Amino acid sequence: MRNKRDVYLDDRPWEEALEGLLKHLEAKGTLQPANPELIAVEEALGRVTAAPIFAANSSPHYNASAMDGIAVDSALTFGASDAEPRQIKLGERAQVVDTGDPLPPGCDAVIMIEDIHFVEDDVFEITSAASPWQHVRAIGEDLVATEMILPANHTIRPVDIGGILAGGIGKIKVYSRPRVALLPTGTELVQPGTELKPGDIIEYNTRVLGAMVKTWGGEPIRRAITVDDWDKLKEAVCTAVEEADMVVINAGSSAGREDFTAQLIRELGTVLTHGAAIKPGKPVILGEVKGKPVIGIPGYPVSAALTMEIFVRPIIYRKLGSVPPEPEYAEAIISRKMPSPMGVEEFIRVKLGQVGEKIVATPISRGAGIIMSLVRADGMLRVPRLSEGYRAGETVKIELMRPLEAVRQTTVIIGSHDMALDILANHLRKRFPDASLSSANVGSLGGLSAIKKGECHCAGTHLLDEETGEYNISYLKRLLGDRPAILLNLVYRQQGLMVAKGNPLNIKGLEDLAREGIRFINRQRGAGTRILLDYKLNQLGINPDTIYGYGREEYTHMAVAAAVASGDADAGLGILAAANALELDFVPVVEERYDLCIPGEYWETPYIQRLLEVIATPEFKEQVEALGGYDLRDCGGVMYRQGI
Amino acid sequence: MRNKRDVYLDDRPWEEALEGLLKHLEAKGTLQPANPELIAVEEALGRVTAAPIFAANSSPHYNASAMDGIAVDSALTFGASDAEPRQIKLGERAQVVDTGDPLPPGCDAVIMIEDIHFVEDDVFEITSAASPWQHVRAIGEDLVATEMILPANHTIRPVDIGGILAGGIGKIKVYSRPRVALLPTGTELVQPGTELKPGDIIEYNTRVLGAMVKTWGGEPIRRAITVDDWDKLKEAVCTAVEEADMVVINAGSSAGREDFTAQLIRELGTVLTHGAAIKPGKPVILGEVKGKPVIGIPGYPVSAALTMEIFVRPIIYRKLGSVPPEPEYAEAIISRKMPSPMGVEEFIRVKLGQVGEKIVATPISRGAGIIMSLVRADGMLRVPRLSEGYRAGETVKIELMRPLEAVRQTTVIIGSHDMALDILANHLRKRFPDASLSSANVGSLGGLSAIKKGECHCAGTHLLDEETGEYNISYLKRLLGDRPAILLNLVYRQQGLMVAKGNPLNIKGLEDLAREGIRFINRQRGAGTRILLDYKLNQLGINPDTIYGYGREEYTHMAVAAAVASGDADAGLGILAAANALELDFVPVVEERYDLCIPGEYWETPYIQRLLEVIATPEFKEQVEALGGYDLRDCGGVMYRQGI
Repeated sequence: MRNKRDVYLDDRPWEEALEGLLKHLEAKGTLQPANPELIAVEEALGRVTAAPIFAANSSPHYNASAMDGIAVDSALTFGASDAEPRQIKLGERAQVVDTGDPLPPGCDAVIMIEDIHFVEDDVFEITSAASPWQHVRAIGEDLVATEMILPANHTIRPVDIGGILAGGIGKIKVYSRPRVALLPTGTELVQPGTELKPGDIIEYNTRVLGAMVKTWGGEPIRRAITVDDWDKLKEAVCTAVEEADMVVINAGSSAGREDFTAQLIRELGTVLTHGAAIKPGKPVILGEVKGKPVIGIPGYPVSAALTMEIFVRPIIYRKLGSVPPEPEYAEAIISRKMPSPMGVEEFIRVKLGQVGEKIVATPISRGAGIIMSLVRADGMLRVPRLSEGYRAGETVKIELMRPLEAVRQTTVIIGSHDMALDILANHLRKRFPDASLSSANVGSLGGLSAIKKGECHCAGTHLLDEETGEYNISYLKRLLGDRPAILLNLVYRQQGLMVAKGNPLNIKGLEDLAREGIRFINRQRGAGTRILLDYKLNQLGINPDTIYGYGREEYTHMAVAAAVASGDADAGLGILAAANALELDFVPVVEERYDLCIPGEYWETPYIQRLLEVIATPEFKEQVEALGGYDLRDCGGVMYRQGI
Repeated sequence: MRNKRDVYLDDRPWEEALEGLLKHLEAKGTLQPANPELIAVEEALGRVTAAPIFAANSSPHYNASAMDGIAVDSALTFGASDAEPRQIKLGERAQVVDTGDPLPPGCDAVIMIEDIHFVEDDVFEITSAASPWQHVRAIGEDLVATEMILPANHTIRPVDIGGILAGGIGKIKVYSRPRVALLPTGTELVQPGTELKPGDIIEYNTRVLGAMVKTWGGEPIRRAITVDDWDKLKEAVCTAVEEADMVVINAGSSAGREDFTAQLIRELGTVLTHGAAIKPGKPVILGEVKGKPVIGIPGYPVSAALTMEIFVRPIIYRKLGSVPPEPEYAEAIISRKMPSPMGVEEFIRVKLGQVGEKIVATPISRGAGIIMSLVRADGMLRVPRLSEGYRAGETVKIELMRPLEAVRQTTVIIGSHDMALDILANHLRKRFPDASLSSANVGSLGGLSAIKKGECHCAGTHLLDEETGEYNISYLKRLLGDRPAILLNLVYRQQGLMVAKGNPLNIKGLEDLAREGIRFINRQRGAGTRILLDYKLNQLGINPDTIYGYGREEYTHMAVAAAVASGDADAGLGILAAANALELDFVPVVEERYDLCIPGEYWETPYIQRLLEVIATPEFKEQVEALGGYDLRDCGGVMYRQGI
């Protein structure tokens, strides 16, 4: 049993799987809130009331002056007017009061200080009558004793604390926070901060899941890492089931060698679902042990976060007598074709930007292992089970992960990657806290093409014209015709060959790439660096076919550098900054110009003007120069303009 | 100076006052975030990055198998097909791997376990070729070392914790939480839990303000209550300015006798504004001492919460390198005329309900002292300075204080008050966590009139027909004509005279109300109880003019009871439950029927069906009966229907 591969997973729609789980728990009686705690009102922010709260006293509990002024018996004032001012002497039926003071016996109204004119030390004059109960806060005006202040199942906000205390209540019953045990499992897992060996995986999932639990009102209990050992895992699960209200086992949920989570839950209790028709997140396990939910969450970080949200969040809210808040949605135009397999609901992370009148959604990497796709996402596009995906330009509904207003304040830059853009993004955020920069790396030609399709506010480009030796202008004209546009210089930068530390293969230039035993790694077609390489190879008369690895493509400078750093390749063309970052040697080949191409219609908008303001600051320039390999002699200068 | 009344306040638009304050602080250099702290990533949820975060390692930091299966040298597989299956022996260039395992040297692809068929113990067969790098997670696929993970000024979410840890970063710099000292001042203030004397005010404001500060990301420091004493207050302010990043002085901001906050700030630093053109909240003081903001917040709870939000919230966000999130808005029809003074921006709390196609906004009490108006509010209506208010039926923009979805799930009941409605609201909430009941007490006739105007889903009514002795039917016909509607009984209840404990004036019935020395307190015109009184007085031949206090009106049973309990009146007509609640004696006069009137179009909707389900439960009935004075013999029964 323990060694049998459990390769066949269910394929149920997640709604059905979730409903099955909730019904099962409901029948077991473990979905209801339990064990209310009595806590001080002042500690109750964000907690959920387990019982209605009734006022113990009225508020105010006495008739109170609502103004600073003089409390009077209104009968004394009848008949006062401009023509016949009335003079009244301070005494029992006319007493000075401040806001909040009790109305003195014998008085039934308050005259505001502003309406009073003292004619002697203890005699004042008024020119209009006071009506009975004017400027008096009657007993119980705010709250009457025994009145319900709040019902059960209410999440306490700051103002509620005021209402409850005003009603004379000091302690209230709230639902205890559902305790969620998080069990990281896997022999390959290491704690953050450990020196990494190949095969080690940093155990950060339960930290993410724990923060999610907190956000939803639960109490995460993170346990030690359990290695892939049946008995140890069994012991860990049994302990967790005793101690917590629900158990989340992270990883061990797919059909791999060490994936005996499902068998274990089956042995200890019930597996309701193993495998849901979602992508990512398919291998999720929904189970129950001793009446408590035990959920097997897949190991890939995106799958983990997603299945946690789909299956664990509703349980936490139910145990808090509440329902998860509805997400916000926005309509967006999808910028590129997005095929998706039939039969599963796919969750695609997207970047969003307000470009012109429309909101454009650009899909980010779909890999379940890419946590940064969640970090960078502005929203989630769900492709239904019975859809094959979307065509470019279709209007889709996006579940927002950032407020729409923040999306609207985001400058969208698509095109070639440069590290100066990270620094720009950071300084933009510091200078304009409500603005941000969203950059997608698709190469220089991809960026100009994105401008053409109305997907971005500007594009990073370093495209060499092989005939004129000029940068960017001819490409701009080819892709944008005579559409008004500006080329703004950001940096000049060194391109060169990144090689292993110490340059063990003694690579001196592009000529060496064709040498026997040199493994090259290339950039993708359309990338400015690729064009530069092809231009130089052509000048040098080197046939690309003679270069081993010419066909292996990476999409960023850093990915190329990483391949060299790991020993997977011996050389790649890229920028000095990337080589420095990974401590590689660098053989300069050429200096190139990196510009931002800005369509005329965005030039005057905050999207661009804010960038210009940041680019002009010394801090930005200093930090870019500190990376090395940059020359900022034209930074912020207009290199070319047409129609504007 | 200390004794001079500072009665003349400024009258500046709040935007101008706020901008002046921010500019002043900016010039002093104290609006910027300061003192970043280095904290563990795992503690960083909700904190704001003080510096960009760059990856220390790549993720993955090695080429990793992305699937469970067999890692191979792809060259071994070229040519494999259904027609020509390829058999491969496990060895150096074909090794079993699990997801996450390092790709063994000599291998460049992974074949999924599902595509493999073992023919011998160490020989497997495949029917298609593996392409190079298939099912391999290349080094840096998620994050490349030195890449920016997050910019500065970013609020950490759960997924961010994953991204940061994946990049090998264990500690990050975040802005310290702005420390906000909260100084309650006033000789009349007492701590919650104190036995209350007339004139005592429970000090709950700084608890509300403190919770707000927490919600916004700051750290509240609540200080002891300072009595109205110049030297003591001065000392408290000086200490707070030393210890905190900003100081909030609660109360002492208006023009009253003890209001020397403004003078004090002026002595210690600068008063920028004393008085803004807002209602409530006008007497706010914006000042600065030693470069730090010192804000005088008015004492009334609604004024306090509102001015805190307008003037303190933006400072906290600025000191966190951030901007407050945009509120959500909804369009609503205002249910009644809402005049508002010119020259001030008025903030009116409203209840919202989806009634038919439209969202209806019903203003709640406008008193600045009524904290429950904030507790009960679904939204805020701002009447601009240069507006005189709104006409009934006008479309207005409401700033939402509850999610629109929650508003849509709310049953709106307007009409006569009964405590059974509180119990109904509570049980509804427990049974349907996403539903709620919103009740507004405007008397029975007001309720039927609200149905007529399309402002509610049902109305509570106990209107006696003085001719037929029947309840509700003739009023329903008079107000709704032959519109389909149902009268559903909720309770029968005792109405009687509430008198002081022990009945010292020996009041035996309505006949005694006209007696010399008896002070009566009445319900408002249109209230069922008022109609009942007039009916009975007429039967008894008592002239209302002979009853002292007949003209003094309250709007709820509890307010009448409170007036009697405080000794302000000797008798009032009301329900037993109210008398019991305030420990009054009760002289029964009559049993009356309390129905819900439900328009036909809502009968089948969840708004009503959910109520019916709750009304039918034994728990609801038991709890109502426990209040005393109720008979539930027809509870949930249809007493009358027309056109449905």
